[in-house]
Amino acid sequence: MRELKIAMLGFGNAGQAFAKLILNKREEIKTSYNCDVRVIAIATGTRGSLVNDAGIDLDKAIEDLAKLHRFAADSADFSETAAMEIAGTVDYDVLIELTPLAIHSGQPAIDHIKAALNRRKHAITANKGPIAWAFEDLRKLAKEQGVRFYYETTVMDGTPVFNLVEETLPMCKVTEVRGILNSTTNFILEELAKGQDYDSVILEGKERGFVEANPSMDVEGWDAAAKTTALLNVLMGADITPDQIDRKGIEGITAEQIREAGSRGKVIKLLCSGILKNGKVIGRVAPEEIDQTELLATISGTSSVVSITTDLMRTVSIVEHDPEIEQTGYGIFSDLIRLIRTT
Amino acid sequence: MRELKIAMLGFGNAGQAFAKLILNKREEIKTSYNCDVRVIAIATGTRGSLVNDAGIDLDKAIEDLAKLHRFAADSADFSETAAMEIAGTVDYDVLIELTPLAIHSGQPAIDHIKAALNRRKHAITANKGPIAWAFEDLRKLAKEQGVRFYYETTVMDGTPVFNLVEETLPMCKVTEVRGILNSTTNFILEELAKGQDYDSVILEGKERGFVEANPSMDVEGWDAAAKTTALLNVLMGADITPDQIDRKGIEGITAEQIREAGSRGKVIKLLCSGILKNGKVIGRVAPEEIDQTELLATISGTSSVVSITTDLMRTVSIVEHDPEIEQTGYGIFSDLIRLIRTT
Repeated sequence: MRELKIAMLGFGNAGQAFAKLILNKREEIKTSYNCDVRVIAIATGTRGSLVNDAGIDLDKAIEDLAKLHRFAADSADFSETAAMEIAGTVDYDVLIELTPLAIHSGQPAIDHIKAALNRRKHAITANKGPIAWAFEDLRKLAKEQGVRFYYETTVMDGTPVFNLVEETLPMCKVTEVRGILNSTTNFILEELAKGQDYDSVILEGKERGFVEANPSMDVEGWDAAAKTTALLNVLMGADITPDQIDRKGIEGITAEQIREAGSRGKVIKLLCSGILKNGKVIGRVAPEEIDQTELLATISGTSSVVSITTDLMRTVSIVEHDPEIEQTGYGIFSDLIRLIRTT
Repeated sequence: MRELKIAMLGFGNAGQAFAKLILNKREEIKTSYNCDVRVIAIATGTRGSLVNDAGIDLDKAIEDLAKLHRFAADSADFSETAAMEIAGTVDYDVLIELTPLAIHSGQPAIDHIKAALNRRKHAITANKGPIAWAFEDLRKLAKEQGVRFYYETTVMDGTPVFNLVEETLPMCKVTEVRGILNSTTNFILEELAKGQDYDSVILEGKERGFVEANPSMDVEGWDAAAKTTALLNVLMGADITPDQIDRKGIEGITAEQIREAGSRGKVIKLLCSGILKNGKVIGRVAPEEIDQTELLATISGTSSVVSITTDLMRTVSIVEHDPEIEQTGYGIFSDLIRLIRTT
């Protein structure tokens, strides 16, 4: 039986959801793919690291984090090895990049992935920074080194967007992309529509966990711009960075505007889009009016959608309904299974 | 360079759309996949057949059909060989089944495909009869013979439904399916909602090509039941036939009912569904009220949708928008490319 050794950089909610899937599905993976997967290293920023070539006890790691808010320092696997050192030295087969997003640079996640690829190790990222800031470099490097670089989770969790085009729409050229990809602005616009004022919506959103402590990354459209960049880089070969997106946030949208649009049968959504214009890909994020009878108007709360137009298959849309953290974990897991299936 | 020889049974609109794709993409397939594809046999029911191991002139075949309404009998490739004989004797690598649907039996398409598989030839079907009436038999036979059997086009043209689950949602178990899959009933219900009476809707639909000469297969839900069976057989291993679907058509729906539902914020759609109940898959086709704010309510005209619920990825929906015959041709083409990529 083949062995596949995993190093995880980051062990937040998504990483733990992935670890639980590995715990639940390890035997099924053995049976289905004749492959024994084990996590041999986990790095965190402030909660310590774990390294054990025979395999880390994932149940205990999750339990310790819940109880101690860090890995147990008296565990035999405990280590102070930092993420970059793990990426560069540990004997893994696939690196999984799960460190926090640096939306204006993509670092240090880009360097982590480069370290893996340079060592001819496969890499999977759930962190969209590297796809938004360095996709072409990483894609080429992986190709040169003869290893895989997967990133399905970076947009819409485990909902197939990149794999949809690559695996199921062969030879199609993407000519246009439209999507609703940011749940915070979806939430804010929906609450404003109910008549609440902006400040109470933000306050309530923070309490309910829909709005970050600092909401500006979402409200100003940066998160949507990073996702749009990722989509356009992968699906349309745009080779752009988030600062090149024509970006407008929802700060200027008032409850009055939303009601007025509603009276004309329209809803306002933060729309992400990309089109081909004179051979160049133009990316845009902006609040736009959408007809209530259109599919995109029905995407509310944490749901999201991407509509993909191609030369051969016209427009196909894919929708993720009400995801939880388990669906983020599954995105990473599906990349891992794809890796096992095809290598 | 590898060669791949194709035999086509049926050469209607979908077959011709596929043939045009082959004409346009043959060089690109050579470059991308190092494979030279050529069509060496085409059988039709009443317009003659063409057989030529060096490759049929597809441009001429399409032109002759347009001009003469049959293949030119003085062409060197012309033959009277029937579909079943081509399936059983011609030296092809992949059989493409495109004969007319026999909604109550799936024949003779099932026998055509069996003939191919028994000869260890790959088979692709755009005809949903075989998937609705004999999927398990054909799947097992293809597996035993070590060849491929693909059928993406049978539901929603080239929109990936089967490939979506198989290729991009690995290890997910489908627990529920819902869809809107019949455009004739979509058209009729929409026109009734505008205030037209049933008979004028049918008449106008026939003139505009949305309604068949005999509309009962659509109106009574048989077409939807065949598609639902195909979905449940492939995605949920149901092993059922269309007569086992709890089927109700739209014959009883009145304009008054539609208006009354509309006043409550609902639309009526012919809904296809399948659920797991006590370990058994229960399939259903019936007109149902759907909330106007739901994604399924926005699926109008020739568009269609399937929502797939799984254990690991919750619910993902895929939508095909306003397809033309080219998208049916692409479905067959995408199965062919998948075959080339993976064999």
